[in-house]
Amino acid sequence: MTGGRAGALVGVDWGTSGFRGYLLATDGTVLDWVASEDGILAVENGSFGAALDVNVGHWLAAAPLSPVIMSGMIGSRQGWKEADYLDCPTDIGVLAGRLTEVAGDSGQVAHIVPGIARVDPDDVPDVIRGEETQIAGALVGHGTEIFVLPGTHSKWAIAEDGRIVWFATFMTGELFAILCRHSILGRTMTGDEHDPAAFHRGLNYGLAAGEGRGGLLKRLFSARTLALFGSLPESGTRSYLSGLLIGCEIAEARQAAAGRLTDDASIVVLGGARLSAAYVDALARAGMEASVGPADCAAHGLVRIARAAGLIGG
Amino acid sequence: MTGGRAGALVGVDWGTSGFRGYLLATDGTVLDWVASEDGILAVENGSFGAALDVNVGHWLAAAPLSPVIMSGMIGSRQGWKEADYLDCPTDIGVLAGRLTEVAGDSGQVAHIVPGIARVDPDDVPDVIRGEETQIAGALVGHGTEIFVLPGTHSKWAIAEDGRIVWFATFMTGELFAILCRHSILGRTMTGDEHDPAAFHRGLNYGLAAGEGRGGLLKRLFSARTLALFGSLPESGTRSYLSGLLIGCEIAEARQAAAGRLTDDASIVVLGGARLSAAYVDALARAGMEASVGPADCAAHGLVRIARAAGLIGG
Repeated sequence: MTGGRAGALVGVDWGTSGFRGYLLATDGTVLDWVASEDGILAVENGSFGAALDVNVGHWLAAAPLSPVIMSGMIGSRQGWKEADYLDCPTDIGVLAGRLTEVAGDSGQVAHIVPGIARVDPDDVPDVIRGEETQIAGALVGHGTEIFVLPGTHSKWAIAEDGRIVWFATFMTGELFAILCRHSILGRTMTGDEHDPAAFHRGLNYGLAAGEGRGGLLKRLFSARTLALFGSLPESGTRSYLSGLLIGCEIAEARQAAAGRLTDDASIVVLGGARLSAAYVDALARAGMEASVGPADCAAHGLVRIARAAGLIGG
Repeated sequence: MTGGRAGALVGVDWGTSGFRGYLLATDGTVLDWVASEDGILAVENGSFGAALDVNVGHWLAAAPLSPVIMSGMIGSRQGWKEADYLDCPTDIGVLAGRLTEVAGDSGQVAHIVPGIARVDPDDVPDVIRGEETQIAGALVGHGTEIFVLPGTHSKWAIAEDGRIVWFATFMTGELFAILCRHSILGRTMTGDEHDPAAFHRGLNYGLAAGEGRGGLLKRLFSARTLALFGSLPESGTRSYLSGLLIGCEIAEARQAAAGRLTDDASIVVLGGARLSAAYVDALARAGMEASVGPADCAAHGLVRIARAAGLIGG
């Protein structure tokens, strides 16, 4: 499966609900990969070493000296061992110098990438953990780069010349999920087929949240009233709500970034294909040029950080 | 129970999850009342007439000619019969002229108060149904009056010389409930005791949503990060989130009302005692003078509308 080449590094993107392992060559080539549902919430009694072996033990048995590097919620308080949050701004070199070590069940040392924390102008902290590694893998390294990582907790980040200088978290995906499942808005939803017209209508109404006439709390009820007056089909309510939330996220991100997300900004979206495509579409309608970033950016980031840490050569 | 006085009117505030009936004198005095959980969702097979009899049949048997007037979700599509939504602005006289009639099981005619609809500057409708009657009961009738009706779907309304000229809906209470029960923010909440310091901290951070640095989506995650960094006790997360949402609601309402909620506005809060007190506190910290409105304003409103409709004299 590895094309005859020896793996130089085992990289793991270990999140709350999923495990993704990569067998990597020194130049960053992904030689093999595994994915499972062994997210940190699925690991019982703190047996993370055993879970690591179950998922990537076959690579470690074949090359026992391969270093292991991990990112994501495995470094949270609920994970294997709490890794630091580094102050923002930071870069790959600083991240690489602050890895946290844990001992695997078969004697390997595994290294956990730190997260990043920043304090917003209202003196409230924000954090990323795992996304710093995806960004590290997608960075070109010069000029201004803007990343959007959509999902349960969407992250927006800005890098300047390879340093992550700003980021913010938006609870868009989680809010969408619980509104669909548990709110009155979900009660009248029928079907889950994507309705582009409804999505765009919700998007436009969400984007207007940045125009000083009320935000998400005021706008949410529209998903009900439009259906009530027959101007939105019930089959489109789900797409409408998705667009509304993404529109609010974009509007709020532009505000929160305080002028750093300019109209001529070019944005790279890092995430699953379907959600990334929806964000690229939404950003374009908000007047922001966007493209989908490289696949496996977590793997690339793990290689770059491992290299900067001297775990592998090259 | 009626102090020897004859009831002139049976008023019913019939909502989604509750039924509240009033036996009323011509001058509006509440002679007797009942409350049950026979909200419209609890009534099976559309047997609203039977539910009415179960709750207030004893009054109707004693005085079969008493007119019956009802407000709330009983006039929705899911209720007994859909009552109109009148265009905003409107007033008690117009509401009284557009009652919808239904026939009770014992032959009485019952009258349903219409709701009110308005279209916001983004061409999206908003509605109230039931709150128009509470407002009708609390109105002084001259000058500018501002009402806040906190709850599952909080309503803000403005009246000018007795006419309801503006209102907006904020899904604050519902969002609070589902975030506590179903989101990651609820997972770390311990206890449900009110923590005033945490409430005020959340409130201040929510109020800042009106200052152009991001809204609710951006601010929600703070309920997690503050606890993560030990600067908010887990026992205060629930109060913090409540304050955050109410703060966002106030900030958004001020925006949505487009200058009509001025700093010297005096606001009347209509709702349950505990929630109303929290809103009066929150509004005061937002620099807005507020007081708790009269109890039983739904009953007063039903009497005023019935009188304007000629159902009772006086």
